[in-house]
Amino acid sequence: MEYVAAVDLGGTKIAAAIAGLDGRVLGRGVRPTAAGEGPGPVLGRMVEAVQEAAHAAGLDLGGARAMAVGAPGPLDPEAGVVLESPNLGWRDVPLRDILAERLGIPVRVENDANLAAYGEYRYGAGQGARYMVYLGIGTGIGFGLVVLGRIYHGATGNTEFGHMTVDLDGPLCGCGRHGCLEAIASGTALAREARAIVARRPDRLQPGETPAAPLVFRLAREGDGEAQQVLDRFVEALGAGVANLVNGLSPDRVVLGGGVMAAGDWLLERVREEARRRAFGAQWRATEVVRAGLGGDSGLYGAVALALDTVQGR
Amino acid sequence: MEYVAAVDLGGTKIAAAIAGLDGRVLGRGVRPTAAGEGPGPVLGRMVEAVQEAAHAAGLDLGGARAMAVGAPGPLDPEAGVVLESPNLGWRDVPLRDILAERLGIPVRVENDANLAAYGEYRYGAGQGARYMVYLGIGTGIGFGLVVLGRIYHGATGNTEFGHMTVDLDGPLCGCGRHGCLEAIASGTALAREARAIVARRPDRLQPGETPAAPLVFRLAREGDGEAQQVLDRFVEALGAGVANLVNGLSPDRVVLGGGVMAAGDWLLERVREEARRRAFGAQWRATEVVRAGLGGDSGLYGAVALALDTVQGR
Repeated sequence: MEYVAAVDLGGTKIAAAIAGLDGRVLGRGVRPTAAGEGPGPVLGRMVEAVQEAAHAAGLDLGGARAMAVGAPGPLDPEAGVVLESPNLGWRDVPLRDILAERLGIPVRVENDANLAAYGEYRYGAGQGARYMVYLGIGTGIGFGLVVLGRIYHGATGNTEFGHMTVDLDGPLCGCGRHGCLEAIASGTALAREARAIVARRPDRLQPGETPAAPLVFRLAREGDGEAQQVLDRFVEALGAGVANLVNGLSPDRVVLGGGVMAAGDWLLERVREEARRRAFGAQWRATEVVRAGLGGDSGLYGAVALALDTVQGR
Repeated sequence: MEYVAAVDLGGTKIAAAIAGLDGRVLGRGVRPTAAGEGPGPVLGRMVEAVQEAAHAAGLDLGGARAMAVGAPGPLDPEAGVVLESPNLGWRDVPLRDILAERLGIPVRVENDANLAAYGEYRYGAGQGARYMVYLGIGTGIGFGLVVLGRIYHGATGNTEFGHMTVDLDGPLCGCGRHGCLEAIASGTALAREARAIVARRPDRLQPGETPAAPLVFRLAREGDGEAQQVLDRFVEALGAGVANLVNGLSPDRVVLGGGVMAAGDWLLERVREEARRRAFGAQWRATEVVRAGLGGDSGLYGAVALALDTVQGR
């Protein structure tokens, strides 16, 4: 039987899979990553994770027809080089060539948010869309655009609408700018606000709870005014971000994924209502705003799809 | 000889041209439009303008192989229907069919900003670009994206990044939302600020001058603190808007056109510097930010190019 390998390299873990030519996952592997690790140890654990997946599938990794890897950007997808990964502390790492040499199979490297978008397009909530926008709201905000079945790359392969300025005088973002969407509407932004709430009122934190997004959501639900304000601003910014993309790119599907959106359909509803209010009629009527269908696996399935494309010479 | 017809329908005038199959303009015509006019009188003057162009070229309009029309506002380019044009007061006007029937030649209708983008791509400052972003900074802010030689349409044909929210709590836009790019960085926004300056200090207005963008630029140059603040905010917003598009779409060329950009290269320099500060390195290094090359004719040349495409079955 023929099969491919897929890896999703994240800030906290490496997820790997072996999949058949029909896209079905046959085996999985996982390893941890830690912030600031150099490429050496991470590369070793990437190989371990994908070997574990092959083992779970009862297959030999060397027999895989191709492998695709999603990595945090910016990266050069054509050269397969991670240009810079602040989370991992990488710079100019020729990921594709290192892995291809070590494993003896063709390897392709792609931005992780692009692969999450592509995974949703091929196997998740984006199936059948012609112009699909993906926003992954997690620690950061990842963006991907799939146009007529292809990942939109632009000139560099890096498309970062997660860092669009939506509030010129807004809070400082991890990227050094003020008022990025990510600075208001990401898990990191909600954790920052949660810490501020807890600093003022330590009693808000329950035993075993951490000051992060779920705390803001719980307090807001319980009627805490401060948490409600934080949530309102989150919804306002994310709704504006979605509306900017609906107005500007006129997708027929917007897929919202990432850990923060897992909070539930109530959050999707609020963001959708805010986006509707801010979108132009023609563009809004032509699109659907939905939650991701693959949970935390969007990126891994995107890597499966890209590896299959490689086998098919696409 | 073979030739095509082109019309750019604007808020104040109708510009028309007859062009040869090499794209060279052989004759021109022009007629005024007035705000709030219904379709009847405007359609009549569109026909007059293009007949004038044919006459100037010494050619018969009925012999044109095709005609393309750029029109404002949300429209359906496939059906050739102007859905809504607040400036002209139009709603659901089947522009293509009306003109095709009246003139007896094939007609195509396209969003005016898309055609300005396409005109710059084919004959102006966007030539040779693979991923070209156009922003036309005039009364409003028009946006167009040309990807690998084709106008990007999305699901509806309407792509309005001129109305992206860049300032959640910003000034009210003509579209009814707050903090759109257009609400801060358009000619209309500068005129609003100019009027506010003049209301407070009527002596700022010289004889014959109107409270509009050039007044803000002149006062800022002369050291007026208030005008400098307005200009700074304009540059900040437009720089953020350009950076959002550079970060998000990774173009290899950004063309800035429209009447406001005609102020001079000093304005381009300031916007470019602000955008550079806000853009990611990988995307910034791969792009050039330039002024439009066709002045007020970008849209008209775009219509010429689209009419030629029609002749060539594209």
